[in-house]
Amino acid sequence: MTVNPSWVLRSHPTAMPTPDNWTLEDRAIPDAVDGELLVKTMWLSVDPYMRGRISPAKNYAAGIPLGGLMKGGGIGEVIASNSPDFKPGDVVISDYFGWQPFSTIPAGSAKIVDTVSAPAQAALSYLGMPGLTAYFSLLKTGAPKEGETVLISAASGAVGQIAGQIARIRGLDPVAIAGTDTKVAWCKELGYRAGINHRTSTDLVGDVAAACPNGVDVFLDNTAGPLHDAAMLNLNTFGRVVIVGTIALADKFDKPDIGMRHLRQTLITRARIQGFLLDDFEEDYTNAAADLLSWHQQGLLKTREDIAEGIEAVPGAFVRMLKGENFGKQLVKL
Amino acid sequence: MTVNPSWVLRSHPTAMPTPDNWTLEDRAIPDAVDGELLVKTMWLSVDPYMRGRISPAKNYAAGIPLGGLMKGGGIGEVIASNSPDFKPGDVVISDYFGWQPFSTIPAGSAKIVDTVSAPAQAALSYLGMPGLTAYFSLLKTGAPKEGETVLISAASGAVGQIAGQIARIRGLDPVAIAGTDTKVAWCKELGYRAGINHRTSTDLVGDVAAACPNGVDVFLDNTAGPLHDAAMLNLNTFGRVVIVGTIALADKFDKPDIGMRHLRQTLITRARIQGFLLDDFEEDYTNAAADLLSWHQQGLLKTREDIAEGIEAVPGAFVRMLKGENFGKQLVKL
Repeated sequence: MTVNPSWVLRSHPTAMPTPDNWTLEDRAIPDAVDGELLVKTMWLSVDPYMRGRISPAKNYAAGIPLGGLMKGGGIGEVIASNSPDFKPGDVVISDYFGWQPFSTIPAGSAKIVDTVSAPAQAALSYLGMPGLTAYFSLLKTGAPKEGETVLISAASGAVGQIAGQIARIRGLDPVAIAGTDTKVAWCKELGYRAGINHRTSTDLVGDVAAACPNGVDVFLDNTAGPLHDAAMLNLNTFGRVVIVGTIALADKFDKPDIGMRHLRQTLITRARIQGFLLDDFEEDYTNAAADLLSWHQQGLLKTREDIAEGIEAVPGAFVRMLKGENFGKQLVKL
Repeated sequence: MTVNPSWVLRSHPTAMPTPDNWTLEDRAIPDAVDGELLVKTMWLSVDPYMRGRISPAKNYAAGIPLGGLMKGGGIGEVIASNSPDFKPGDVVISDYFGWQPFSTIPAGSAKIVDTVSAPAQAALSYLGMPGLTAYFSLLKTGAPKEGETVLISAASGAVGQIAGQIARIRGLDPVAIAGTDTKVAWCKELGYRAGINHRTSTDLVGDVAAACPNGVDVFLDNTAGPLHDAAMLNLNTFGRVVIVGTIALADKFDKPDIGMRHLRQTLITRARIQGFLLDDFEEDYTNAAADLLSWHQQGLLKTREDIAEGIEAVPGAFVRMLKGENFGKQLVKL
């Protein structure tokens, strides 16, 4: 093992990314300059939004230049601190971990992780970005009313597994779309009333109609693609569609997405279709995280992690997640 | 001239409607049964939503069966009343006028027209459905903030001509898209800051960018089609897109609309895309109509009508309007 094997972006993918888009370079353990922390990486998170970071196009996530160190969410232990807010031994979370064992991160991007209430990696999963995304996308942007049918794509994924359970807790009627029978079965264990395997369905529009006999009131769209069509064509009057993710476009990310446009359906249903970004809800994180922790402690939130091991595994884990081959929140343990 | 020449739907159009989709049948002057009024038609209105009435598919407007009398908005004088709320001589407006000189309409659909404050036909234009559509779609669903750029398609049409002037009155920055240079020039006279002729533009995305140097905050989409793309690709963060009409789909109404889907753009901008139907704002009509009348009386609302004459002209006027060949609110005077 070299000192600090670090994944560097070698090429911008033009279709589905492959591990060859990165190359592992040995790097020195970096020095933390003023306002930075040197951290020893414990966990790395691979998330759909990171597809945008390796695109040359404008996205909400800062782009990684060719030859640049790949970055993403992570948890690590502070080795050296050049910030008065942190000290060695602190366990911190940040969106700016390098894909490397030793990383420097801006202190302003770091937060102390509560390792007492839950395992550290929960901060990358149900207590962190995916859990908060589920919470705000469903309860705020989706604005569901009691008893409404909530259709959720990528339902066993990091966001979907939490969203379905929040829907159940709040007296809604959650219906899952997932990519294997095993995932659908697990979604039902979580509290989803019904589920559809979109990879074996031969009639997604009809299967959504059958699973949602009262129509779809809220659709949490984690994927875009054909699942979006199936939901739109079953949408109720005044339905709400929250665009949370577009992972089905991972293989044609910078190309136009050509397909059915639903403008007449939007008009007829007076649907509200709205893009979602978690950052917009930052001032409400504390209350939401407290709800999530409380539900977890009451046994109301079950979660599932899919853990890869070692720095070598990171690009493969990222690509697996983009292809939907993971089962639960995809993490890499170092 | 026969007694009551009436336009009957002969076939459902599968592409752009033509006058041949209707046939003129002589009918007797009908009797008003209980709860109905017999009216002598003075004005008929042809409006984009009526494309839905002649489609076999489910729409928000009640469908006309084959062989059935074509219906739409109109103004007429009550000849005989079977309702205590109306008397002969009243001038009334309803969405259920037949395309015929003498019509029976449900009294519940009729309202007395104020012929003192404005010409009667204003109730089919800036004081009626198109004016109210402009008012609520812009001010309520669009929810603009002062100084924001509002892009409006079909900008010289019945809705667009009013929406642009309301935008100006409310301190917004309206930009027009219309189909001829003459229409664009007239939009600027109305108060639109800039305008684009979409029929001569060779780069709609670039022309919208040039006309909206601060980006598009609110887009009133009266057309769907390529104009929708040009707006979406120039949309600002937290932009609002109000789907008011889909007239560009009039020639492929019951077929899937295939084209660019803007789900990533929606996600990145956190856009809100929302379907609009005037009926949803019924309880606020009175205040809105008072604003429109007041602005008109202050000289702040200029309007333009495109008037065809005679019952024979109705289907042709409707098709002309669908093709964008009208200039201003299309009416037929009987």
